[in-house]
Amino acid sequence: MSKADSNKAEKAEKSGLKARLPRGFVDRRAAEIAAQGRMLETIRATFELYGFEALETPFVEYTEALGKFLPDLDRPNEGVFSFQDDDEAWLSLRYDLTAPLARHVAENFDAIPKPYRSFRNGFVFRNEKPGPGRFRQFMQFDADIVGAPGVAADAEACMLMADTLDRLGLAGQYVIKVNNRKVLDGVLATIGLGGDAQAGQRLTVLRAMDKFDKFGTEGVRLLLGPGRKDESGDFTKGAGLDGAQADKVIALLLAGGSEETPERFAFVDALLTAFGENETARAGIEELHTIAKLVDAAGYGVDRIRVDPSVVRGLEYYTGPVYEAELTFPVTNEDGQTVRFGSVAGGGRYDGLVGRFRSEPVPATGFSIGVSRLFSALQLTGSPLAEAPAKPGPVVVLVLDRDEIAAYQRLVATLRGAGIRAELYLGGAGMKAQMKYADRRGSPVAIIQGSNEREAGEIQVKDLVAGAEAARNIASNAEWKAARPAQFSCPEAEMVERVRAVLAQHFSADA
Amino acid sequence: MSKADSNKAEKAEKSGLKARLPRGFVDRRAAEIAAQGRMLETIRATFELYGFEALETPFVEYTEALGKFLPDLDRPNEGVFSFQDDDEAWLSLRYDLTAPLARHVAENFDAIPKPYRSFRNGFVFRNEKPGPGRFRQFMQFDADIVGAPGVAADAEACMLMADTLDRLGLAGQYVIKVNNRKVLDGVLATIGLGGDAQAGQRLTVLRAMDKFDKFGTEGVRLLLGPGRKDESGDFTKGAGLDGAQADKVIALLLAGGSEETPERFAFVDALLTAFGENETARAGIEELHTIAKLVDAAGYGVDRIRVDPSVVRGLEYYTGPVYEAELTFPVTNEDGQTVRFGSVAGGGRYDGLVGRFRSEPVPATGFSIGVSRLFSALQLTGSPLAEAPAKPGPVVVLVLDRDEIAAYQRLVATLRGAGIRAELYLGGAGMKAQMKYADRRGSPVAIIQGSNEREAGEIQVKDLVAGAEAARNIASNAEWKAARPAQFSCPEAEMVERVRAVLAQHFSADA
Repeated sequence: MSKADSNKAEKAEKSGLKARLPRGFVDRRAAEIAAQGRMLETIRATFELYGFEALETPFVEYTEALGKFLPDLDRPNEGVFSFQDDDEAWLSLRYDLTAPLARHVAENFDAIPKPYRSFRNGFVFRNEKPGPGRFRQFMQFDADIVGAPGVAADAEACMLMADTLDRLGLAGQYVIKVNNRKVLDGVLATIGLGGDAQAGQRLTVLRAMDKFDKFGTEGVRLLLGPGRKDESGDFTKGAGLDGAQADKVIALLLAGGSEETPERFAFVDALLTAFGENETARAGIEELHTIAKLVDAAGYGVDRIRVDPSVVRGLEYYTGPVYEAELTFPVTNEDGQTVRFGSVAGGGRYDGLVGRFRSEPVPATGFSIGVSRLFSALQLTGSPLAEAPAKPGPVVVLVLDRDEIAAYQRLVATLRGAGIRAELYLGGAGMKAQMKYADRRGSPVAIIQGSNEREAGEIQVKDLVAGAEAARNIASNAEWKAARPAQFSCPEAEMVERVRAVLAQHFSADA
Repeated sequence: MSKADSNKAEKAEKSGLKARLPRGFVDRRAAEIAAQGRMLETIRATFELYGFEALETPFVEYTEALGKFLPDLDRPNEGVFSFQDDDEAWLSLRYDLTAPLARHVAENFDAIPKPYRSFRNGFVFRNEKPGPGRFRQFMQFDADIVGAPGVAADAEACMLMADTLDRLGLAGQYVIKVNNRKVLDGVLATIGLGGDAQAGQRLTVLRAMDKFDKFGTEGVRLLLGPGRKDESGDFTKGAGLDGAQADKVIALLLAGGSEETPERFAFVDALLTAFGENETARAGIEELHTIAKLVDAAGYGVDRIRVDPSVVRGLEYYTGPVYEAELTFPVTNEDGQTVRFGSVAGGGRYDGLVGRFRSEPVPATGFSIGVSRLFSALQLTGSPLAEAPAKPGPVVVLVLDRDEIAAYQRLVATLRGAGIRAELYLGGAGMKAQMKYADRRGSPVAIIQGSNEREAGEIQVKDLVAGAEAARNIASNAEWKAARPAQFSCPEAEMVERVRAVLAQHFSADA
């Protein structure tokens, strides 16, 4: 290390300032932003086809307006980034797009035509320990219908999920699963878990049921009863149900029947026989029946939308139908097992959420798409939305003579004036480094003008795409220099026309 | 008030939970989102034409990485929303898009081809007292070039600002004004304000100069000297300069010459004569001369880009050229005076900001557009980008018979399958309220099917656009009922075709 270098390193160390992203946050570069943008645009267009309209709420809300509805959180305010206003009021970063919608609707209740079909797309924040695929800032894309009391709205939400996945190219690779909190609540009431005093135990049971896909019957039975120790020895406390109680819950999980015989309306009789004695459960089963009839009439088969009594959904505020979109194609999980890709969207009915601000409940239902998870799925399935080739870089005008930079600037301005993406090389490096820069930018063309060319009113056009191809086929350096492939000179006045011709040769018009 | 109502009101009051936006934050509805989206798309396309590429950084950064560079803040951390991570590290919401860019470049220095042309678009946050037009969450759109040491990069930034405003339809209504911090620093050094000890006084002088547009020569002289009392009696402390010192500063402000004779290169001799004895000032003047030559060569006249020694820019981290885009058309301010619309974008060179994380300075220059301010300008000038008519609402399928909702659902699915935006009425109200709903949604067509029509396999198509027109021309209710204008029945199988024909009659294809 030279003395100068060592001084510099010392200085940087002294400042102690390290450039680093906060844990659980990411930067995104141009190619990913563009690919994800195409996916978001498809979702938006589908939501609009269903009559939903855009709404944007701020990232910050009063903490009390957001409420405490995060799943898997036992302590208040855990999971939320909060800070105090200058007048001491507590503010929080939104943790989903549903609570802010409820606030917006309640605040503008009379001005909004109801039923109100709203979609929202944006980042939400969770103050959680980050991990693989688990970020503290992530994007959701939500659709909700507020002011529609009937389950026809829930059926619409399920159909919208299905159509959205179809339009993203995932036809045949998903199933929308529907359940009803009333069935869950009713069944839990029959085993003595009704009422406010049992709310905590009820939540533990719901979380255990939610693990059915992952742990199967035996694992869930342990979580319902004494608790479960995993392979690493970590112990998860159980819900403390006795054998008969656990049997009833397991029976509900299994009532979905096997996936091989998904007869659309078979569940109705089975559920009514097993759980129909409870009034709440019966109401829930009837709602599921109505939803099944509606989606059936609209042409959605059981391969696309299906009743499944094992669906729980984590959020506490659901009051009726709950639904989720599961991608069914296989992936390998962290433990090397082959599993289904799993849930990419979910939601349900939350008739109490807007009502927190008002004197009466306001019916509402809707769902949320996990954008980055869905985007991963599109990448895994090789979707053209996620995989479209990157745009070519800009044409680069090289700077051979720094005193003539105004002349080079004029060339760039001419290209831009013709609508051709172009830039002047603005670094301090020589010819070779400039060519390397053009290569790293993915530039299709470089424009070169030395003093001889300038005097003659000419430029050199270097076709970098053809050049790269030729380079793969020409062995010797001497041969290369003699042939000078993919480079030609032309009068300055013909630059635009000649560059356009080169671009047209390699790229389609919209690139 | 009925007893039930009074009970409800009591309950809502008891919960004490009010639905309200936090102070200084706003919601945005569909029409505004769409209009602003068109503006953002124009900006993006122009930035890409110049070879800039998208980058997205998170909303949250480590507080120390952001630094303390907000203008007009004397206390540390004022102006920034901050909170602690679970490991006690301080995090902040970003207050601009420049500090996160510096962090990103420093963190990924070797992977990024340089010069790096980056654009970023997104919300930033300020923990300030909100006021009219002053929000705590607002959007910026930034373009920066990192790794370009020469002022050709600053010239590019100025031309990009000009071209962006042209493409937004503001040609002839703006001027880009350029100055150089080196000139300001050099002149301040000649009056004894060089060196670290005078940093505070220097900042007060710069802020006084920044008020030249607003208060004129006499107002600025007070702010440079003893201080200034405004009409309300509020006193602003002055910089404490003596008469000779203040004269020199005022001379610099006036060196821009009158706007009637903006000769491109006239400023060079004037500035060199008055301030050229200082080496820093001389270097700055020469840089301004180079910028003027470059933009001149590229065909940008003084009506578009002009040197103006009164431009200061508030941020402390600028080290060279500074520039801002001023809209010149007149508006009426809060006090009823006619003034220029003013600045909508600004920036400059900040060679030290990336270097905070590294052992050497990294040259960088760029600017930030204030998105909502620019959008206001487009609204004021009646730009088609801001004023485009709203899309028609969705076709609404009315629900006359709730038991037949599956049949209505099928009609909706058919319309959507044909790519026609459509929705089922999901509320609980009767026919009249459903028509009112369709009206509020701006629906162009309602589909109606009573039991008679259903049995006959027919539907009623109601053209709501023609209907509204007819309503304006038909006086009596009886006459209306007899004529039943703009409504016809047709077989269900012809629904798509007939609805398409009605839509084509009223709207262009892309609506």
